[in-house]
Amino acid sequence: MSAPATTVAVVGAGAWGTALANVAAEATGATVPLIGRDAGRMAEVERTRVNAARLPHAPLQPGVRATAEMASLSDAEIVLLVVPTQTLRGVAAEIGPHLAEGAVLVACCKGVERGALALPHAVLGETLPGRAVALLSGPSFADDVARGLPTAVTLACAHEAVAERVAEALATRSFRPYRSTDVVGVALGGAAKNVLAIAAGVVEGRGLGASAVAALIARGFAELARLGAALGARPETLSGLSGLGDLVLTATSPKSRNFSLGLALGRGEPPPQKLAEGAATAAALVSLASAHDVEMPISSAVAEVVADRLTVSDAIERLLARPLRAEG
Amino acid sequence: MSAPATTVAVVGAGAWGTALANVAAEATGATVPLIGRDAGRMAEVERTRVNAARLPHAPLQPGVRATAEMASLSDAEIVLLVVPTQTLRGVAAEIGPHLAEGAVLVACCKGVERGALALPHAVLGETLPGRAVALLSGPSFADDVARGLPTAVTLACAHEAVAERVAEALATRSFRPYRSTDVVGVALGGAAKNVLAIAAGVVEGRGLGASAVAALIARGFAELARLGAALGARPETLSGLSGLGDLVLTATSPKSRNFSLGLALGRGEPPPQKLAEGAATAAALVSLASAHDVEMPISSAVAEVVADRLTVSDAIERLLARPLRAEG
Repeated sequence: MSAPATTVAVVGAGAWGTALANVAAEATGATVPLIGRDAGRMAEVERTRVNAARLPHAPLQPGVRATAEMASLSDAEIVLLVVPTQTLRGVAAEIGPHLAEGAVLVACCKGVERGALALPHAVLGETLPGRAVALLSGPSFADDVARGLPTAVTLACAHEAVAERVAEALATRSFRPYRSTDVVGVALGGAAKNVLAIAAGVVEGRGLGASAVAALIARGFAELARLGAALGARPETLSGLSGLGDLVLTATSPKSRNFSLGLALGRGEPPPQKLAEGAATAAALVSLASAHDVEMPISSAVAEVVADRLTVSDAIERLLARPLRAEG
Repeated sequence: MSAPATTVAVVGAGAWGTALANVAAEATGATVPLIGRDAGRMAEVERTRVNAARLPHAPLQPGVRATAEMASLSDAEIVLLVVPTQTLRGVAAEIGPHLAEGAVLVACCKGVERGALALPHAVLGETLPGRAVALLSGPSFADDVARGLPTAVTLACAHEAVAERVAEALATRSFRPYRSTDVVGVALGGAAKNVLAIAAGVVEGRGLGASAVAALIARGFAELARLGAALGARPETLSGLSGLGDLVLTATSPKSRNFSLGLALGRGEPPPQKLAEGAATAAALVSLASAHDVEMPISSAVAEVVADRLTVSDAIERLLARPLRAEG
């Protein structure tokens, strides 16, 4: 007889939360609560077995239980928090009273919290002290994961045994979490790539060509590498799945909300209504870098454009019309 | 009165050679010989002022002189060699007698020479000893450059003053060479990215989705980083324009011949007739790595697929179905 499956709960019923609940149900064979805020909508998702508004082409796995009851996470050994970075602190406070003893918290968002300039794992560490905290990040579109396409992500936790346990609990044939202990590196890569993807979208949207986008991605990665070095991230994390891999995916695909926002800005079209994570994070990322004496010119330009303090034309001029100089 | 312009000649009249001749003519304001092998074709290019077969949408700049006369490079202070890596040694031997004293040689190809396992600058160094040798590499499509879209490339030479001189001689408002002294790093990035782009094309062509392609690019970059470390390349070169930047461009765009070859292989279609640089380089790259005790599993799979010793399905299985493990 095999050991009882690890129990997983998912907080946040957007596209990514729904896809991850399906992964967890397939991986564990156990029941997976998928917890959303809107009781009416969650009842509808549970009844129709599909999250029509967010992930319409992927029926729920049989083990997933859509609900608005926060208490339904009380048995979970692993709780995935799949909410935007800017709301993570509030959600963490809300789930605190319902958590089982020893439950591992896994932040599945990518950004820097405004105000506190905190990375997701730090937000959880401050709000729910004494608990094991992990990050799940990497190149992944909810759609691809829901369709069973092969996806490799990074599962980071300062405690390697915890990282290994969570990675194994969530692994399926097509969804492959690689473990890491470099939590800061993984968090920085996720935060920066969303901001840089907006810049890549701007360059693409302005019709400057694929060579210019590629150059921007390389120079954007250099910004991330400088920030990572200042904060003690490992270089191989930054050039791994959660850094470079996710940057490449996000900065070259219109399926990314951040890239799409940049595209609209570059074309002079009205930006999409739903705010992309990168727009919310840009200024906080630049402030975090600045606090460590690191310059991030591309991210700064994005922050200023998003805040309407710089025109797209001036941003492009600033980014591309730089003097010839040595690289690096 | 300003100093007389540096004189540049281009050997190799493919799309990239033609685009670079236009850049050089614009940058220097001087006459630029564009030397091709086929006298009839070159006469036609000179007469019609367009390289219709290779770069049909870009008229020649007024300063460009299309010719098949190798002797026309005898006044050039900078000679760009824009020929495939596997033919570089022969072309270098051929131009030797015509070179002006002190002429700088700039290899503009990306690969590893079969047999000798030599990088382009080493091929030139062996064939024409005692001359300053540089590399021009980086994310650039001939089309984009010809259309005047902004493009940033790396100009590498062990002698920084030479790198600076060549970079300045070739710079226009839209074509921006950044100088580097890390010749090995630039050469390795260019060679590896063509091979990895074939792998990315295979994954894309098999319909495995953008997340899988992004994961493959990140894990491919890790291979390049390992090889670079073994050969003394600087990490910032590998993550710069000529490494990461060019990898991103080549591995995500069907405009790349290497990516297109992979696409065809992944789809089970007959590969394009014209051999891509990466196909010629794959086995040599893996042998070079092996000689330095570096494993490159993705490049190895490409080499075996290209040599018909591994099916595409088995290659994908080998690349994606790996055990969960720590990253890096």
